[in-house]
Amino acid sequence: MQLHGTSLISGVPIAASADRFAAESPFRPEPLPPCFYEATETDVHRALSAAEAARTALDGAGSKGRAGLLERIAVELESLGAPLLERAHLETGLPLERLASERNRTTGQLRLLAALLREERWRDLRVDSALPGRQPLPRPELRRTLLPIGPVAVFGASNFPFAYSVAGGDTASALAAGCPVVVKAHPAHPGTSEMSGVAILRALQKSSLPAGAFALLQGRSHALGEALVRHPLLQAVGFTGSLRGGRALFDVANSRATPIPVFAEMGSLNPVFLLPGALRSRAPELAKGLTQSVTQGGGQFCTKPGLLFGIASPEFDAFQACLVEAMRASQPATLLHSGILRAYECGAARAASHAGVQILAESALPAYPALTQGRPLLLGTDAASYLAEQPLREENFGPSSLLVKAPDMAALLQIAARLDGQLTATVHGADADAGAVGALFSLLEQKAGRLIYNGYPTGVEVCAAMHHGGPYPASTDSRFTAVGTAAIQRWLRPVCFQNFGTLLSARLSAGL
Amino acid sequence: MQLHGTSLISGVPIAASADRFAAESPFRPEPLPPCFYEATETDVHRALSAAEAARTALDGAGSKGRAGLLERIAVELESLGAPLLERAHLETGLPLERLASERNRTTGQLRLLAALLREERWRDLRVDSALPGRQPLPRPELRRTLLPIGPVAVFGASNFPFAYSVAGGDTASALAAGCPVVVKAHPAHPGTSEMSGVAILRALQKSSLPAGAFALLQGRSHALGEALVRHPLLQAVGFTGSLRGGRALFDVANSRATPIPVFAEMGSLNPVFLLPGALRSRAPELAKGLTQSVTQGGGQFCTKPGLLFGIASPEFDAFQACLVEAMRASQPATLLHSGILRAYECGAARAASHAGVQILAESALPAYPALTQGRPLLLGTDAASYLAEQPLREENFGPSSLLVKAPDMAALLQIAARLDGQLTATVHGADADAGAVGALFSLLEQKAGRLIYNGYPTGVEVCAAMHHGGPYPASTDSRFTAVGTAAIQRWLRPVCFQNFGTLLSARLSAGL
Repeated sequence: MQLHGTSLISGVPIAASADRFAAESPFRPEPLPPCFYEATETDVHRALSAAEAARTALDGAGSKGRAGLLERIAVELESLGAPLLERAHLETGLPLERLASERNRTTGQLRLLAALLREERWRDLRVDSALPGRQPLPRPELRRTLLPIGPVAVFGASNFPFAYSVAGGDTASALAAGCPVVVKAHPAHPGTSEMSGVAILRALQKSSLPAGAFALLQGRSHALGEALVRHPLLQAVGFTGSLRGGRALFDVANSRATPIPVFAEMGSLNPVFLLPGALRSRAPELAKGLTQSVTQGGGQFCTKPGLLFGIASPEFDAFQACLVEAMRASQPATLLHSGILRAYECGAARAASHAGVQILAESALPAYPALTQGRPLLLGTDAASYLAEQPLREENFGPSSLLVKAPDMAALLQIAARLDGQLTATVHGADADAGAVGALFSLLEQKAGRLIYNGYPTGVEVCAAMHHGGPYPASTDSRFTAVGTAAIQRWLRPVCFQNFGTLLSARLSAGL
Repeated sequence: MQLHGTSLISGVPIAASADRFAAESPFRPEPLPPCFYEATETDVHRALSAAEAARTALDGAGSKGRAGLLERIAVELESLGAPLLERAHLETGLPLERLASERNRTTGQLRLLAALLREERWRDLRVDSALPGRQPLPRPELRRTLLPIGPVAVFGASNFPFAYSVAGGDTASALAAGCPVVVKAHPAHPGTSEMSGVAILRALQKSSLPAGAFALLQGRSHALGEALVRHPLLQAVGFTGSLRGGRALFDVANSRATPIPVFAEMGSLNPVFLLPGALRSRAPELAKGLTQSVTQGGGQFCTKPGLLFGIASPEFDAFQACLVEAMRASQPATLLHSGILRAYECGAARAASHAGVQILAESALPAYPALTQGRPLLLGTDAASYLAEQPLREENFGPSSLLVKAPDMAALLQIAARLDGQLTATVHGADADAGAVGALFSLLEQKAGRLIYNGYPTGVEVCAAMHHGGPYPASTDSRFTAVGTAAIQRWLRPVCFQNFGTLLSARLSAGL
């Protein structure tokens, strides 16, 4: 597919702006062709007007029509084949194999949502039949269903150019709900975004649905994103990215004359608690598993375990030795772009500069600056320093983690009680740790959206039972998830139909 | 029950403040005894600390334990008997009969939520079993359930001293979810609030649950409400009242370092569209039904129909004549307090002063100022004036409505398309109106939380299918309801348990 560097509005490439930018590749010194036109406020207005106009058709297509659309998007993404993966590889530096599996996850979640739609149970239909003879007053017939909330803006993440981007979970769940989508493409992978956007437009066309149901806006400026969130026709926002970016959009949305809901998933430290019995029985296995979880994908996962806690003991020291060895042997990874690498290195240096913090291990293998490589890093500290220094409790995006040695179980519980909101929290234990496991989880369940026992937080399963969200700052609304079939609930609002009788049949056949 | 004029924190009456106030009665010139102590910021902190401490016990009581609590609250409210109704009558001016039925609705919704809890389906339990042999990666076992979000603040409304107040739907649904509740009592009925609060405390005691699970704060100041919403231990807010009050608390909640969800239900104009066929076939019945819906409870319902739309025609004129007659014959009603009466009269005078607005009818019966009585009022205007004047599209709390004569169906559709968010929207039609009914509802379903065909918006059924909410400004989040069993969803957050196996059994037996 030839890239045109354009936004896509009403199915038409838009190349009207004087302001242009190019994608960078972490593998190359020069920018990647072509140049991309920065979308304007006029483009925002056009995209949302087209989205508003497409509401009725998308809703009217019904569950089956939209299931077909999602399945066609999956097919169109697949039919882009290797060139899509290669462009994503150039733009993000992520390995082709990982990108292929992420693309498969993305088509898989489109098909999972299509299956959900075909079942119809997602409507949570509730019926209270009429009781005309009830005293003192009759009850009218009441039927409640869920309807699409309206046009949704999606802000994709840089670290998942498919699964959390143009055709990712937010777009898929919003289209499933019957909401038109305007994507603000992440400027770190505009070519991948354009290709994915074209795939969605092809699927809309093959589904005989209006092109206005999807738009893609290219751009780097915060002003563009803000203009999108401020637009009066917009009804909801999905965002994946940094705390700063998510909070900024959340604040804009809430300062509108008519506020709209924002679901921003903003990352997490993903604390892991390593209990004595677990360290005694399987230190080498844990060291290997954690190193892999910290370093895979260059540590650029929102579920990367960034905090590891244990209790001072001989088994802790033995585990630390294993972990140091595994981290030293781990490979430097190409990070998404030079800005990410700089931020990673600054964050690591800042953390290491705190009194009481030591560098325990760094990858012993060479990191190539020309390949934008970041070096896996393990820092160590004690519980008191950890609790005293707020910056140690902030996410550092990249392949690093902080191992915290606590004096005793009471200190571990104190740490758990003082955690900020998290996407995940993990405990590794053995039979001997049973009491401590229970005590920790009873604190952690108030802090995280997903609790993991004897497992690793990376590798987010896309399924009905997944919850990918959590108390702030992990997300802006702990009641919703960004991943799994329940993600559709962010874009649906209940409507109660009173005394409709057979009138509702028309609505049912039109859209339900 | 003797009133002490106190807040209730940890089960203890609090009378520490120098600042005091008394309740007014719309029937009496002098304030009602006793004086009430204004709660302080220290009280807010104490109440929330006690609430936080009560979380585990309330959650640990499980569905059955909390069902028992709700049922005991209903019994305790009932056992307060006539004195509760009499105090509410004095404080609100609402008739005893209406108050008795509202009290029954309140105990009914407590018992309905108890029944929901006993069923367990409310947890929306989702299970994805482990697939250890899956390629390329095994799937861990994932189970998702809903857990309480934490301490909830409830701001009750003045117009429903039971159903939307201390032991009303917000408190009942939050306690059902397992969330401790801190109620900011409405200063228009502090005595009713104290009595209801004592009933809840008695039920907590009889359920062997900590008194900290419920607190009552008395006060008139906005600063008190803001301090409550700002408190870091607070996790969510339920509010029923004015747009200005709800938006202020929404803004405070969203400006916190850690924002929390606010569900504010802020009223509505509840437009009613009267189609030609309906007017031809049943003008007298419609005039009677609408007059009753506009004037019952002094028009002090959030679902009062404040806007009536029809198309200029002989049948419209005939209907208008019937409506004028019915409104003239309707009784003036004692309003909640003198402030409400003043605001009602000012709002009516302001609306009537617009060019193009006429007073069509006013109750012909005497309204007694000493009884704080407001006079039912019907204003009339044309579609152009209605669309030109924003103040005509704002709620006037009290027994008035505005009849708008549109030139044709196109104008009605334009009006529907330009409506703000509403709690309800109603269409009256007959067989001859079928096309117009469909066209109107397809617009109205984007504007309102409940659509009514050939019925009246007042009389909100408490049931599974009810949705009492709607697009802003009807509520701050159209995805949730304040009434019915789905109201519990505001106070629940999903948590996913990964690889817990039998570990989760302990959690299940403890709290689920």
